[in-house]
Amino acid sequence: MSPNASGEAPRSRRERPAKPALTRQKIIDAALRILSAEGLGKVTMRRIAAELDTGHASLYVYVRDVEDLHAQILDALLAPLVTAEPAGDTWRERLKSLLIGYGEILRARPEIARMALSTQPSGPNSVALVDRILALLLEGGASDKAAAWGVDLLLLLPTASAVEQSGPKPARHATGDVDAIATTIAEVDPAKAPNIARLGDLLISGESEERARWSLDVMIDGILAAG
Amino acid sequence: MSPNASGEAPRSRRERPAKPALTRQKIIDAALRILSAEGLGKVTMRRIAAELDTGHASLYVYVRDVEDLHAQILDALLAPLVTAEPAGDTWRERLKSLLIGYGEILRARPEIARMALSTQPSGPNSVALVDRILALLLEGGASDKAAAWGVDLLLLLPTASAVEQSGPKPARHATGDVDAIATTIAEVDPAKAPNIARLGDLLISGESEERARWSLDVMIDGILAAG
Repeated sequence: MSPNASGEAPRSRRERPAKPALTRQKIIDAALRILSAEGLGKVTMRRIAAELDTGHASLYVYVRDVEDLHAQILDALLAPLVTAEPAGDTWRERLKSLLIGYGEILRARPEIARMALSTQPSGPNSVALVDRILALLLEGGASDKAAAWGVDLLLLLPTASAVEQSGPKPARHATGDVDAIATTIAEVDPAKAPNIARLGDLLISGESEERARWSLDVMIDGILAAG
Repeated sequence: MSPNASGEAPRSRRERPAKPALTRQKIIDAALRILSAEGLGKVTMRRIAAELDTGHASLYVYVRDVEDLHAQILDALLAPLVTAEPAGDTWRERLKSLLIGYGEILRARPEIARMALSTQPSGPNSVALVDRILALLLEGGASDKAAAWGVDLLLLLPTASAVEQSGPKPARHATGDVDAIATTIAEVDPAKAPNIARLGDLLISGESEERARWSLDVMIDGILAAG
C-alpha cells in the first residue's frame, strides 16, 4: 500500500493531476454500475468510494446513508419513465401506462423493488412521477383528498407485484403457482369452502397482465368514487 | 458424537421408549417455537429435525420444502383469525375487520409478512380466510368475477403494508418518514410539481390506521363497481 509500490517516485499532491470533482450524479452512476454487475448487496458506501477513488467519508456530503443511496438509485432508474409522455388516448390509459411502466422498472430489479416497498421515494424523478399521477387523477375527476391518498395505493400495487414475482424461486413461481392453487382449489371441501368450490375457475382465470390492468382499474374507480 | 459420549451404556433401539409419532402439527409447532425464539432464518428442516429428535428426511413426508413450511407457519398463525367471528354490524365492517386482523398478524412477524408476499397461501386456515372474504364480497353485491379477482387485491394491501412497515429501520421509519416526506414537499418547486405543491398538506394527512381503512374502502368500492 506504499505510494512507492509501483516503483514510481512519489509525487506531491500538487503535482498530481486534479481528481475530477465528486458529484451526486457520479455517485449514482457508480452505484448503478455496481448494481448491474454485482447486485444491490454490493452497493455500499465503501465499494462506491473505492470505485470513485475517494474516501467513503466524502460520499456523505452527497448521500445521507445507504437507504438514501438506494432511494436515489430508484430515482435515477425512473428518469426514462418521467421524461417520456405516457402512452394512451385518455387520462385513464395514460395513468395505467405510467403505473405499468413503473412496475416494469421494478420487476427488472427485484432488489430495488423490495427496497422501494420499505423506503419512501425521494429525488426529482420520484417527485415528477407522483406529481403526474396526481395530475391524471385530478383530470379524471378525483377529489383532492382522494388523489392525495390514492397515489400511495396506486404505487403500492406495481411495487408489491414486482416483489411478489421476485420470490426465492421466481422461475418456479411464475409457472408453478397457478398449478399449486388449482390443486388447492380442486381439493377444497365444498362443505367447508363453498365459495372457493363454486368460483374455482374464476379464481385462477386471467393472465397476470390482464389481472394487473383490472386491479388498477378497480383502484382507480374506487379512488374516483371516494370523497 | 459417539452414542456413548454421555458415559451411559448404549441401549438398543428396542429398549428405548418409543418416540412419539411425528405429525404435521408437531412439525408446525416446533417451527413456531423456533420462529418466536430465533427468527425465520433459523426455521430450517435440519433445525426442526433436531428439535424433534428425528432425521430431517422424515420431515419431507409432511412438508414439501422450506417454502411449504413457511406457508404452513402462516397458516397456523391464521387459526385465531378464522375461528372467531369478525367484528362489525355490516358485511363491509366485517370484511375490513378480517383484513385488518390479517394485517396485524403479519405486522407482528415481519419475516412472515415478507414471505407471505411471495408465497401463495395454502393450508386449511388460508382456505377458510379466502372463502370468508369471497362470502362477504358476494354478500355486498360483488359479481362472481370481481369477488374472485378482488380477493388477491384485498389480501395484498395488508401484506404489503406489513412489509412496508418492517423496513431495515422500522423504528425510525415509523416516526421519521412523515418528516422526510414533509421536507420533500416543502422543498418542491411549484413550477415543476404544481400538484404536490398544492396538495402538500393532504399528502401527509391522516393516521396510518385511518389511511388503511380508507384504502380498504376504496378497493372494496372499486370491486363492487367492477363487472
